[in-house]
Amino acid sequence: MTELSRRALLAGTAALAVAPPALASAPKAGTQVPGFYRYKVGDYELTQLSDGAATFPMPEHFITNRSKERAIQEAERLYLAPAGKITVPFSPVLINTGSKLILIDTGYGPNIGPFVGHLPANLRAAGVTPEQIDTVIISHVHPDHTNGLHNKDGSLTYPNAEIIIPDVDWAFWMDKSNAAKAKTPLTKAYFANDFKTLTDLRNAGARERVSTYAAGREVAPGITSIATPGHTPGHRSFAVASGNARIFIQSDVTNIPAFFLDHPDWHVMYDHDPMLAQATRHKFYDMAAAEKATVVGYHFPFPCVGHIEKAGSGYRLIPTAWSYAL
Amino acid sequence: MTELSRRALLAGTAALAVAPPALASAPKAGTQVPGFYRYKVGDYELTQLSDGAATFPMPEHFITNRSKERAIQEAERLYLAPAGKITVPFSPVLINTGSKLILIDTGYGPNIGPFVGHLPANLRAAGVTPEQIDTVIISHVHPDHTNGLHNKDGSLTYPNAEIIIPDVDWAFWMDKSNAAKAKTPLTKAYFANDFKTLTDLRNAGARERVSTYAAGREVAPGITSIATPGHTPGHRSFAVASGNARIFIQSDVTNIPAFFLDHPDWHVMYDHDPMLAQATRHKFYDMAAAEKATVVGYHFPFPCVGHIEKAGSGYRLIPTAWSYAL
Repeated sequence: MTELSRRALLAGTAALAVAPPALASAPKAGTQVPGFYRYKVGDYELTQLSDGAATFPMPEHFITNRSKERAIQEAERLYLAPAGKITVPFSPVLINTGSKLILIDTGYGPNIGPFVGHLPANLRAAGVTPEQIDTVIISHVHPDHTNGLHNKDGSLTYPNAEIIIPDVDWAFWMDKSNAAKAKTPLTKAYFANDFKTLTDLRNAGARERVSTYAAGREVAPGITSIATPGHTPGHRSFAVASGNARIFIQSDVTNIPAFFLDHPDWHVMYDHDPMLAQATRHKFYDMAAAEKATVVGYHFPFPCVGHIEKAGSGYRLIPTAWSYAL
Repeated sequence: MTELSRRALLAGTAALAVAPPALASAPKAGTQVPGFYRYKVGDYELTQLSDGAATFPMPEHFITNRSKERAIQEAERLYLAPAGKITVPFSPVLINTGSKLILIDTGYGPNIGPFVGHLPANLRAAGVTPEQIDTVIISHVHPDHTNGLHNKDGSLTYPNAEIIIPDVDWAFWMDKSNAAKAKTPLTKAYFANDFKTLTDLRNAGARERVSTYAAGREVAPGITSIATPGHTPGHRSFAVASGNARIFIQSDVTNIPAFFLDHPDWHVMYDHDPMLAQATRHKFYDMAAAEKATVVGYHFPFPCVGHIEKAGSGYRLIPTAWSYAL
């Protein structure tokens, strides 16, 4: 029997170069599967929807309290992206309560690049049209969560939906005196983008359907908002409950878990108040681990559903295995 | 701001019971997404295809050298299944080389239950008909890999395909003197099933297209078989190479990785020669970890693609994040 060795393998596969150039019985598909995945929470049917993922050169200060070299080293160790790069996925959630279709967050919208902005297409692939959405809940006002509210022509992507925005974020990002204090190009860009997004919403024809919501309230049937500040001042997570089942939608308590869940004291460049975000992370994951709660993350590896356990000085995501039964 | 506490959450979600009984804007889908996922290896396009997954009460000796209680405890710790049960997924691979459509393994076939036997349906969902398959490679002769070769009426599922079977497994399972030595009900069932499967194949109209293959050979363009014995005597893994890219399809070097990759010296009840399987596991994963190779597993969590790293006394699977780009 052949020895299991690298040499044998490489020798064995060398003949590949002479594979015949004939036509395949079926052409290659050339595109990825539509990105959606269903699961149940009690009587509710949830669908994780991919808006896509961005792969980009590791920014100089992606982890603001660690070096770029350390970030690249960790990304390579965890096979996260091609060398020197990082990948961040974006995955909104659709909740069908039986009486309402509720979308939490809207993705990056149509103007970023080929591998993001796919939420409307993936929503349709999952059998739902944007016109059918009853409620859009925004977790926090950052472009990768809000810019999908508008189509390329500026019209509302979900024209019949009530749109609700965290009260604290609305007040914060619309306040010109806060914008005046912005120091970094990233923060300035956030203020510019967010001011435009919220102003466009306020001016939209559907103005009467746009409102703000407080933390700790049931913002839709069975969906309770949770104050998880730090990433933005008004950042919100959610508890979704139906019958005896209950899960947490964490939104951006971490960015990619391989970095910021394993290392909860690392600070991602997108956090507005890094120390408050760090405190929120510990509080949220200590609770999730103790409760053995199912946690859904916007930047988790698709399909974004898992459990949290304590591991060393941080936490570990145990992704839930793809289920065939609903 | 609301305190992040269990009490607040439970209070907040109590109102759910009074959700209105109105009709939803869209009916619930009620079924899972078709299970397939694409990725590239050089110029080759690979598609992981789900045949489904079986959830069953933890067998008395699922891990033959550990207690049932230990197995249940580990399954619960890792959120693998409802209490007292275990879930095993089954995922064949389709390889489009540009000139050939090659299927590795065929799933459990149509006679097991509602959550397995979905390979033909998922293949169609991925845009390929069973009639288009050029070659079926069987990794080893066990029912969850071979029974999908036949339709419910006994006809060949892939009527136009060349079908190749490991030479050692063909000889072993067809030998009545080996069958006579079988002691456990499981081994007896394997001999009965496998003898019938291979005999049916030999007697099929497509007899001239059924043959055996040796280890260490390029069995299809760019696909080299690797002897990884123990699970069955003729168990085979594969190296798939195109251009500079190369991955390993491990077949059943482990059953579910959460158990047998983290604990490579645990023995799953399905292994024919547990000590040889254990030795093969160490050899295979030591190589995969050293090579930083991409490894695909038939019983890995869908979509079944990842890397192996050494961790403690065993190994850890780092699942590859869902990619949006091909």
